[in-house]
Amino acid sequence: MGAKLRIFSGSSNQVLTAQICERLGVEPGRVKLSRFKSGEIYVHYEESVRNSDVFIIQSLAHPINELFVELLVMIDAAKRASARTVNIIMPYYGYARQERKSAPREPISAKMLADVLTTAGASRVVTIDLHAPAIQGFFNIPVDHLTALDLMTEYLRAQNISNPVIVSPDAGRASTAENLADGLDSPFAIMIKKRPAHNQSVITHVIGDVQGCTPIIIEDLIDTGTTIVNVVEGLKERGAKDAYVCATHGLFSADAIQKLQHPNIREVVITDSIAQPVQLPANFKVLSVAPMLAQATQFIMEGGSIAALFKDRGI
Amino acid sequence: MGAKLRIFSGSSNQVLTAQICERLGVEPGRVKLSRFKSGEIYVHYEESVRNSDVFIIQSLAHPINELFVELLVMIDAAKRASARTVNIIMPYYGYARQERKSAPREPISAKMLADVLTTAGASRVVTIDLHAPAIQGFFNIPVDHLTALDLMTEYLRAQNISNPVIVSPDAGRASTAENLADGLDSPFAIMIKKRPAHNQSVITHVIGDVQGCTPIIIEDLIDTGTTIVNVVEGLKERGAKDAYVCATHGLFSADAIQKLQHPNIREVVITDSIAQPVQLPANFKVLSVAPMLAQATQFIMEGGSIAALFKDRGI
Amino acid sequence: MGAKLRIFSGSSNQVLTAQICERLGVEPGRVKLSRFKSGEIYVHYEESVRNSDVFIIQSLAHPINELFVELLVMIDAAKRASARTVNIIMPYYGYARQERKSAPREPISAKMLADVLTTAGASRVVTIDLHAPAIQGFFNIPVDHLTALDLMTEYLRAQNISNPVIVSPDAGRASTAENLADGLDSPFAIMIKKRPAHNQSVITHVIGDVQGCTPIIIEDLIDTGTTIVNVVEGLKERGAKDAYVCATHGLFSADAIQKLQHPNIREVVITDSIAQPVQLPANFKVLSVAPMLAQATQFIMEGGSIAALFKDRGI
Amino acid sequence: MGAKLRIFSGSSNQVLTAQICERLGVEPGRVKLSRFKSGEIYVHYEESVRNSDVFIIQSLAHPINELFVELLVMIDAAKRASARTVNIIMPYYGYARQERKSAPREPISAKMLADVLTTAGASRVVTIDLHAPAIQGFFNIPVDHLTALDLMTEYLRAQNISNPVIVSPDAGRASTAENLADGLDSPFAIMIKKRPAHNQSVITHVIGDVQGCTPIIIEDLIDTGTTIVNVVEGLKERGAKDAYVCATHGLFSADAIQKLQHPNIREVVITDSIAQPVQLPANFKVLSVAPMLAQATQFIMEGGSIAALFKDRGI
Amino acid sequence: MGAKLRIFSGSSNQVLTAQICERLGVEPGRVKLSRFKSGEIYVHYEESVRNSDVFIIQSLAHPINELFVELLVMIDAAKRASARTVNIIMPYYGYARQERKSAPREPISAKMLADVLTTAGASRVVTIDLHAPAIQGFFNIPVDHLTALDLMTEYLRAQNISNPVIVSPDAGRASTAENLADGLDSPFAIMIKKRPAHNQSVITHVIGDVQGCTPIIIEDLIDTGTTIVNVVEGLKERGAKDAYVCATHGLFSADAIQKLQHPNIREVVITDSIAQPVQLPANFKVLSVAPMLAQATQFIMEGGSIAALFKDRGI
Amino acid sequence: MGAKLRIFSGSSNQVLTAQICERLGVEPGRVKLSRFKSGEIYVHYEESVRNSDVFIIQSLAHPINELFVELLVMIDAAKRASARTVNIIMPYYGYARQERKSAPREPISAKMLADVLTTAGASRVVTIDLHAPAIQGFFNIPVDHLTALDLMTEYLRAQNISNPVIVSPDAGRASTAENLADGLDSPFAIMIKKRPAHNQSVITHVIGDVQGCTPIIIEDLIDTGTTIVNVVEGLKERGAKDAYVCATHGLFSADAIQKLQHPNIREVVITDSIAQPVQLPANFKVLSVAPMLAQATQFIMEGGSIAALFKDRGI
Repeated sequence: MGAKLRIFSGSSNQVLTAQICERLGVEPGRVKLSRFKSGEIYVHYEESVRNSDVFIIQSLAHPINELFVELLVMIDAAKRASARTVNIIMPYYGYARQERKSAPREPISAKMLADVLTTAGASRVVTIDLHAPAIQGFFNIPVDHLTALDLMTEYLRAQNISNPVIVSPDAGRASTAENLADGLDSPFAIMIKKRPAHNQSVITHVIGDVQGCTPIIIEDLIDTGTTIVNVVEGLKERGAKDAYVCATHGLFSADAIQKLQHPNIREVVITDSIAQPVQLPANFKVLSVAPMLAQATQFIMEGGSIAALFKDRGI
Repeated sequence: MGAKLRIFSGSSNQVLTAQICERLGVEPGRVKLSRFKSGEIYVHYEESVRNSDVFIIQSLAHPINELFVELLVMIDAAKRASARTVNIIMPYYGYARQERKSAPREPISAKMLADVLTTAGASRVVTIDLHAPAIQGFFNIPVDHLTALDLMTEYLRAQNISNPVIVSPDAGRASTAENLADGLDSPFAIMIKKRPAHNQSVITHVIGDVQGCTPIIIEDLIDTGTTIVNVVEGLKERGAKDAYVCATHGLFSADAIQKLQHPNIREVVITDSIAQPVQLPANFKVLSVAPMLAQATQFIMEGGSIAALFKDRGI
Repeated sequence: MGAKLRIFSGSSNQVLTAQICERLGVEPGRVKLSRFKSGEIYVHYEESVRNSDVFIIQSLAHPINELFVELLVMIDAAKRASARTVNIIMPYYGYARQERKSAPREPISAKMLADVLTTAGASRVVTIDLHAPAIQGFFNIPVDHLTALDLMTEYLRAQNISNPVIVSPDAGRASTAENLADGLDSPFAIMIKKRPAHNQSVITHVIGDVQGCTPIIIEDLIDTGTTIVNVVEGLKERGAKDAYVCATHGLFSADAIQKLQHPNIREVVITDSIAQPVQLPANFKVLSVAPMLAQATQFIMEGGSIAALFKDRGI
Repeated sequence: MGAKLRIFSGSSNQVLTAQICERLGVEPGRVKLSRFKSGEIYVHYEESVRNSDVFIIQSLAHPINELFVELLVMIDAAKRASARTVNIIMPYYGYARQERKSAPREPISAKMLADVLTTAGASRVVTIDLHAPAIQGFFNIPVDHLTALDLMTEYLRAQNISNPVIVSPDAGRASTAENLADGLDSPFAIMIKKRPAHNQSVITHVIGDVQGCTPIIIEDLIDTGTTIVNVVEGLKERGAKDAYVCATHGLFSADAIQKLQHPNIREVVITDSIAQPVQLPANFKVLSVAPMLAQATQFIMEGGSIAALFKDRGI
Repeated sequence: MGAKLRIFSGSSNQVLTAQICERLGVEPGRVKLSRFKSGEIYVHYEESVRNSDVFIIQSLAHPINELFVELLVMIDAAKRASARTVNIIMPYYGYARQERKSAPREPISAKMLADVLTTAGASRVVTIDLHAPAIQGFFNIPVDHLTALDLMTEYLRAQNISNPVIVSPDAGRASTAENLADGLDSPFAIMIKKRPAHNQSVITHVIGDVQGCTPIIIEDLIDTGTTIVNVVEGLKERGAKDAYVCATHGLFSADAIQKLQHPNIREVVITDSIAQPVQLPANFKVLSVAPMLAQATQFIMEGGSIAALFKDRGI
Repeated sequence: MGAKLRIFSGSSNQVLTAQICERLGVEPGRVKLSRFKSGEIYVHYEESVRNSDVFIIQSLAHPINELFVELLVMIDAAKRASARTVNIIMPYYGYARQERKSAPREPISAKMLADVLTTAGASRVVTIDLHAPAIQGFFNIPVDHLTALDLMTEYLRAQNISNPVIVSPDAGRASTAENLADGLDSPFAIMIKKRPAHNQSVITHVIGDVQGCTPIIIEDLIDTGTTIVNVVEGLKERGAKDAYVCATHGLFSADAIQKLQHPNIREVVITDSIAQPVQLPANFKVLSVAPMLAQATQFIMEGGSIAALFKDRGI
């Protein structure tokens, strides 16, 4: 890799950054990230970035607003220090669920983020499994939208799960489930729910056959885990076996981890797009997106087709 | 309505414009729209628009690229003639299916449109049932996103269809079907398909029970009609009765109208978001969005909550 | 005030907002501000803002990054709900001390904020006693820069302090002290310090005569209080009496309030630009900026010269 | 030429593109250009353009609006595929005759095009003999404005035309005629016309002497040919011999080609800035701009002065 | 006129401003325009412009760069003082002759001006007889482009000039001459020149018949007068009588006024678009554009068609 | 240095440019800078700048508005000639004292300059000792803010001045004085003044001890010299010895040079940031910023930390 590449980690993903750097054979860039007593974030790059291609790695995990402002400040400092380009690797794009108005006089926060990142000085975004793929179009700078679905498929295939059924937790996410079902050559089913309020849902019935099958529930994101547990229990009531729960992003808000240590969950499969605690429960499996992000970085620097990273899959 | 409102029709929706104007008690604005032999579009407003709130009504129906460039030229002329605001009522937003990259090195044409309309001088967009709701977020100018789902629900309820099942033609559109099922208090089903190529699809199976039911297939858009006919036939094979086919936008490309005069289609229900021929086949029903658009225009001019137009439905 | 004015409070300044609204004879606007378990902020205006002049009142106090992102989301929602203008009353502009690079490869966060607020959709900013007046120039939208110095001067004059000396805590703030000295017709002095590190300072000597005087220390902002206490003690050592400590913005980070209950501090005079706890220690005096902000809002709505708010003072 | 150059043809100029590529020793880039039944254009680059300097060659000839939207979509796709620069070679810039308002409430479509191309992502434009040279100034991206006048002059000089007179078809184009007259060291004349309507004109008289001369009529563009035929016949009536008709751009709308097979037209000389049918009538001569465009491309990639392409002629 | 209109004069056109204000029945706005010893311009509006429609009247006459920067500073101050709109009445648009590159590596200064005025905060431009009409298209804000040609035609018609011939001083300006010839129902002629260098020209011959006629030379602008004197003498040599010299803008650089007191010039007719000395020579006639500009201002404030100001003439 | 670097001088700093070029081993670029009789500036680069990194050196000294417009025209021409980057070395940034509103309805001209330079096409600014460091934040393009304070400190240290006291001429500039005092390990003092009007000031008293000391007065800029002479005389009256007067920028408006040949001024120390007359009085010392600017240019071209140019000093 050329001498011009500099990779810096925000507070959110330091282990992932180290792994990406190791694969690329470069040292992580030195940057001081601190907070004054006033809560103001202070950033100082401790090495020159003049004329460099700067990559900043930051997922908008917990605490999301702190991490977002930190990222803005990091971008501003890099731009003013004459970086040639400022590339944001944001494995998990927070606020992605606010990608349209579902009631009048709501924000479209996912778009606000896109505009604000660009204004601050971002010149490219690399991200994984956006909650809504159209978010790519919120940007006018190039977006490399990667997917962990191949990683997931490969892992699940190796488990030799007998009689699997891919389950979409709601109608709106049915096409991801369809894709995974395709990859594993399995049937799939959809849970039908009512949402009396934000963050709440009640399953009314299931479309598709789950009786006696091992459900593989697929989501882009696990947040509080409440939905997942509802789905798992709903499946159990309908005669399914213990479930696999799969999601690219393990956000694990509130007591999600505890909730997911549920008797009817056989395994929770996520990636390290969001940094995970060292000690996760035994039934949690973390797949690494570091090889994929390292490869993407290399292609961005040297040219090459990121599409080649994915088998037969349009992103 | 104030003296400052001026409503002009592009080439695509002149009947709809007349109806909206009639409801608002204003005359449609006079604008000359012509084409030189070179194919260049020429626009000339034949009355002053200085300091006015100009509304231009144009759906991106056939011929889409001509209509789109005509719209750009109309916007430019209005802006340069010192219109105070230039509001685009685009009942059908074309190119909306190109709202994300489904393969690398593709465009996101729906975003390009949004940017280009804004650059030309649009200050607001009013549209109906976007193919992907996130397209709202492609704009930084205000977007009023209306829905014809209430119109549709009300009409279908009045038909007293016995034993109905709402059918989503594919997994990706399942949530619209879920909404309609909710409104009609009916079960719903999803068709599972493979798409070997663009504009092609093969149904592999159905999730949900359709035997002996009257299917109500719901789509945002009917384009060539091929998918719909596949779905209708697939349902028939699985024991369903003749189907209702519903879509907000009747684009009817190629021989779609002919295809939809199918023995297993009981009725095709669309709106006039796209101008329809005067003589449609007998089993076609056109609901009018004119009252809804007139109301929205009034609220935009005088203030008021467009949300009040919709019962219990977030847009 | 016209029917088009809508004043909303962010989480930071609800009491101040209520007071401003009361003076203007309007009700505070209803807006739902909440946080999901994921930490994402959710905003919903509970009344129409279409065609209105929206004023959002938010100081970037504690917790600064949360409040800043909340403000961005509030602006985005107002813009998309077709507000005519989105005016930000930010009595205390956080990050204002990061208004230039004091070392290479630092951000200019105060400028980043200005750009980002504008991108999100702000159309005007009203603020008080910026740490650096040039921050006005960071914006291309109009900025009304008010000062609490007249409030402060009037209050201090009413105390009939005998033998006062205005004290600038460092060389960089000497001109504010000079202004106050002018207003009170008093001498002034400057503390000379070394800053071995951020958030630290050591007084080396004082320029000007303080022996036997009552110091009135003037600052734009009290943060941790460490500097103030150093100054107070330095003055005491040099023969001064107990001090008045004055600042427009009482940020009071960490244990500042406790520190300022210092035997050599006679009174701490601040304003409500930042919301203060109901129970402040007895030697704390809070002056209200509500009348000034209400007046400014009225002038913005109806026209009039904000300059007339200030006697003989360029802002 | 470096490995980073990628040249793609829009639908309008595939032969020209092939010739340019041949001269530069590169293969034309592979790009899929198609249309759905809905009329929507679909673009897919079939090779990586990451970090490349992309050149897109497209003249806004017939059908102009289709070709324009195709170009926008091509630009969008290239930008999103991380092209380093997106250079537009537009040998013929359509809509150039709408470069100012000639009546109130008209558009300035040529400016709208410029803005929209830039918004879509164009980073440079190369064009030939703009109808109005000030159109260069419509762009803020660099414009290389080339001329075919040297090509034309050289060709005409080689014909050894006896007793030539350069003829400007109207007063507005007199300076181009003056330039050519200068280059051929010939006298020149101007046709004086009335324009009762768009696309119509009536010659009233001629300024300058044409009796017994061979007229060389010079235009930037031949559109319907009506004007040219009027001019030719007007010249004949005033005693001139059969004419040469020269124009950089042979747009040939409607039955122009047929009209130009006129007994009093000796030869029609145009360039391949617009693709011409393989079988043109015998009295049509097509000069190629490929060498000039290849040279310009090389200078853009490698540095060098495009001015050197033109002898003594400011562009 | 509404209470919101405020008209301010830059240093260049104070008499014209007074006349416009008188016609509109408003007082000219009070603004302090001064220069420090450093040459820096200082501007201070001495009355509130908050929420007002500010009109600034400034021609880019002598000294052009001073007046241009003064205008920028005036715009900036008006914008920051919360003017609702900032309208620039620039009767004479300087730098308009640099509207395209006539050699490589030249600026397009007329475009730079347009961009810079917009950036500074201009929201509209009103101007008269641009050197190149396409300059309208350099702006994205509305431009009202007026003409003094009707004024000129009316005046000349009243002189009952016998046997007139309209003369264009060069080929490039032939269409203005054609327009005037049309208005006066006269023949016209064109001078053919070589330009060995900037600001120089040598007449080689005349196209059209001038023998025994009274030439009416028409230009948009008289600069140094050298060209005009050449033309006048060239006409005299070819048997013409003494000439009328007409131009909208009398810039009169260097000793132009003296030069134009030429024995073969019968009258010099200009407008007050540029302020003229009180004592002009007897053969100078100044027509006033004040009525036209007052009318345009009124239409901008109250709505109405500026086109109605001109008889049968597209602008 | 690479073949792509091209350094051009505006009219203001040709000697400095030559020195910078000599140090970098490159020839100054050839550019024609002239003025038409109309006062319009004309710029023509006489060598190709295509794909080059262009550096333009221009201080906004006398005549400031001419030099500023010249710079804008130079930037425009470079941008249109396809320069890769356009870097502005502006050793002295004029209008920097108008960096905030000190009264309502004033401009912030320093910000207007920043915006306008960026709009014209500047991609980076290098400057020295800005009057207000926050002006860096007026730009979104990178700003390299250098200081001559090290130069100054080193020179003064070599003079072995006995019993020095650093003097700030007013409270607002006290921190620069504090910095220099730090560097020379000397005490410092502040002059307290009233400013009855712009460009005027009356010293009321001095804070700090100056009796018997040699004052070193430090300013960023010497303009008319009036302030300096007041300060010098005020110091003398208070028992100080003859003074050193130091400033980065010697603007020397009006008769400043004459005024500064004052019996109580021992030496005037400035830099060549602004071009100085060859024959300055004997007690004027000019330090050269050419080495520093050459070094900065090299770092910009080749990468490297400009911070390394300064010992222990944040800029």
